[in-house]
Amino acid sequence: MLDTTNASTIKTDALIIGAGPCGLFAVFELGLLDIKAHLIDILDKPGGQCAELYPEKPIYDIPGIPMVTGDGLTKGLLEQIKPFGPQFHFGEMVQTIERIGDPLFRVTTDAGKVFECKVVIVAAGGGSFQPKRPPIPGIEAYEAKSVYYAVRQMEQFRGKKLLIAGGGDSALDWTLNLAPIASHLTLLHRRQEFRAAPDSVNKMMALAGEGKIDFVLGQVSSLEGADGQVSKAIVKRNDGSNFEIACDAILPFFGLTMKLGPVADWGLKLNDDLIEVETASFESSEKGIFAIGDINTYPGKLKLILCGFHEGALAAQKIHRYVYPDKKLTFQYTTSSTSLQKKLGVA
Amino acid sequence: MLDTTNASTIKTDALIIGAGPCGLFAVFELGLLDIKAHLIDILDKPGGQCAELYPEKPIYDIPGIPMVTGDGLTKGLLEQIKPFGPQFHFGEMVQTIERIGDPLFRVTTDAGKVFECKVVIVAAGGGSFQPKRPPIPGIEAYEAKSVYYAVRQMEQFRGKKLLIAGGGDSALDWTLNLAPIASHLTLLHRRQEFRAAPDSVNKMMALAGEGKIDFVLGQVSSLEGADGQVSKAIVKRNDGSNFEIACDAILPFFGLTMKLGPVADWGLKLNDDLIEVETASFESSEKGIFAIGDINTYPGKLKLILCGFHEGALAAQKIHRYVYPDKKLTFQYTTSSTSLQKKLGVA
Repeated sequence: MLDTTNASTIKTDALIIGAGPCGLFAVFELGLLDIKAHLIDILDKPGGQCAELYPEKPIYDIPGIPMVTGDGLTKGLLEQIKPFGPQFHFGEMVQTIERIGDPLFRVTTDAGKVFECKVVIVAAGGGSFQPKRPPIPGIEAYEAKSVYYAVRQMEQFRGKKLLIAGGGDSALDWTLNLAPIASHLTLLHRRQEFRAAPDSVNKMMALAGEGKIDFVLGQVSSLEGADGQVSKAIVKRNDGSNFEIACDAILPFFGLTMKLGPVADWGLKLNDDLIEVETASFESSEKGIFAIGDINTYPGKLKLILCGFHEGALAAQKIHRYVYPDKKLTFQYTTSSTSLQKKLGVA
Repeated sequence: MLDTTNASTIKTDALIIGAGPCGLFAVFELGLLDIKAHLIDILDKPGGQCAELYPEKPIYDIPGIPMVTGDGLTKGLLEQIKPFGPQFHFGEMVQTIERIGDPLFRVTTDAGKVFECKVVIVAAGGGSFQPKRPPIPGIEAYEAKSVYYAVRQMEQFRGKKLLIAGGGDSALDWTLNLAPIASHLTLLHRRQEFRAAPDSVNKMMALAGEGKIDFVLGQVSSLEGADGQVSKAIVKRNDGSNFEIACDAILPFFGLTMKLGPVADWGLKLNDDLIEVETASFESSEKGIFAIGDINTYPGKLKLILCGFHEGALAAQKIHRYVYPDKKLTFQYTTSSTSLQKKLGVA
């Protein structure tokens, strides 16, 4: 028999896919019931949409908190779950979920990690954050070979002719960081205004003024190259005229969009790209796989953070039955239970 | 035809029975949808159990708030709903709910107020807070005539021989307040230790030391009197011996307990003294009457404050259909909707 487990398999009670507010709070509700959790998120930090889309925007409808930023809510939740020592795996995307028990799952990520867990909680919000692909014909052929939507290792761009496209913080920050190591760098943006920190814009303008980089107004209309290696970009100016920029690599930074991603492949009953759950425990059509937060659907569903909190609390009760099938669960309150307070480190 | 409406009938969209955390947050979710609310509570302040049972005790499981007292949570919620100008009616208990439309209700309280509302939200927690009755045979016959569980008017006790029983803040506070106007006052408590502010205990001891009141250890075992007027209490000391205390009025302060109360009479489908609701909108068996928080039940129900928040949010969506049958509701976020932010007074 083929043994597919290996020493590096990470074993845990619950694997939470998505470290947004609902995934984070699920750690708390699970922790109160002695259920350990690992979290995987495609972003490089916790907070999900709160951290990625509106870290500084005020949220007004978190109950009991008249105003909090996405960042502030994330910090509050991280402090709240600290006693339970959740393990985070950032910058990774779950690719496969295989049932190996009743319930027991083997889960793999695109970074090659393997988890073995009793339950899976899908708290993936709108799905996976993925870079927005610019509307350039045939760009797919160059992706991951000479067109990159993120910089994993700066060194791979040393000595190269780079074309960076975009006007947000990512485009500006990477222009400033890569300018010293690139042989030549062009920043291409379709207009004079930026959605980036003014200080970064000033620094970029200074580099352009010194002739260390080119700053060009326009948009890439097509690419030329062979075997995935781009050689030049045809750029259209706002007045309609065209010109060419020779380049070895292109870095388009047009923000992130959300895609359902691999969730669609896990055999869960979906309804309009959302995971159908029942409302007693928010379990999906697959025993042992739960879905909470924006990614699930049921009659009356509202995509509110506060609803995801409720969903995680109810899910934890049923998960307890799977993780501790022989233990009877007695419902307790944090306000009055010394046992829960000990787990929280306050008694 | 008999017209039972009158000028003093209070008209509102939603009437919320119970001003605990779930009732308070419902005001927020209703307010975002332009639905006005009045709240009625048997207590003399907002906060429900949070205010009455654990104002200073920490709560650890409000999502995003690692620790908050019952009092702190209540304050946060009051600030959060302030933009919607909820109207409070404290120290009153709803007695009758009569359906007069589809849906439209006439609701009366024990203080004689009459409301006309499109929907009712029962957010009554464990029911009505009611004083604990001491186990004295036949005490019912004296209640409201010479045995009182609360002091509404101090003057009614002027010149009377009073017996106050209990060892908490209410017993001590009323001992200090009534001692100057009573002709004689005895404080009876079963042991030397008190669950009251040390300062109050010291003041009471000083009065006893000066001979201005009697402080006696023991418990009332029986009463004597006629036609509801008590004349003396037979008190059992801790050593088993008995003695008598002559008195005109007895004030037992043994805390509050929760009783379902009039909720049982409103024709709602109950399950073990809880209101059955469906989980898409938390509507009861009666169209237009909703139940949220600890008083409702459904598969998976947890008596957690955070669950009541979710229930109120979903209820508000269906209530909008009853209050504005012709308006289409577009779901919006406080983080991004200028229209919602205007209602909150922040845009």
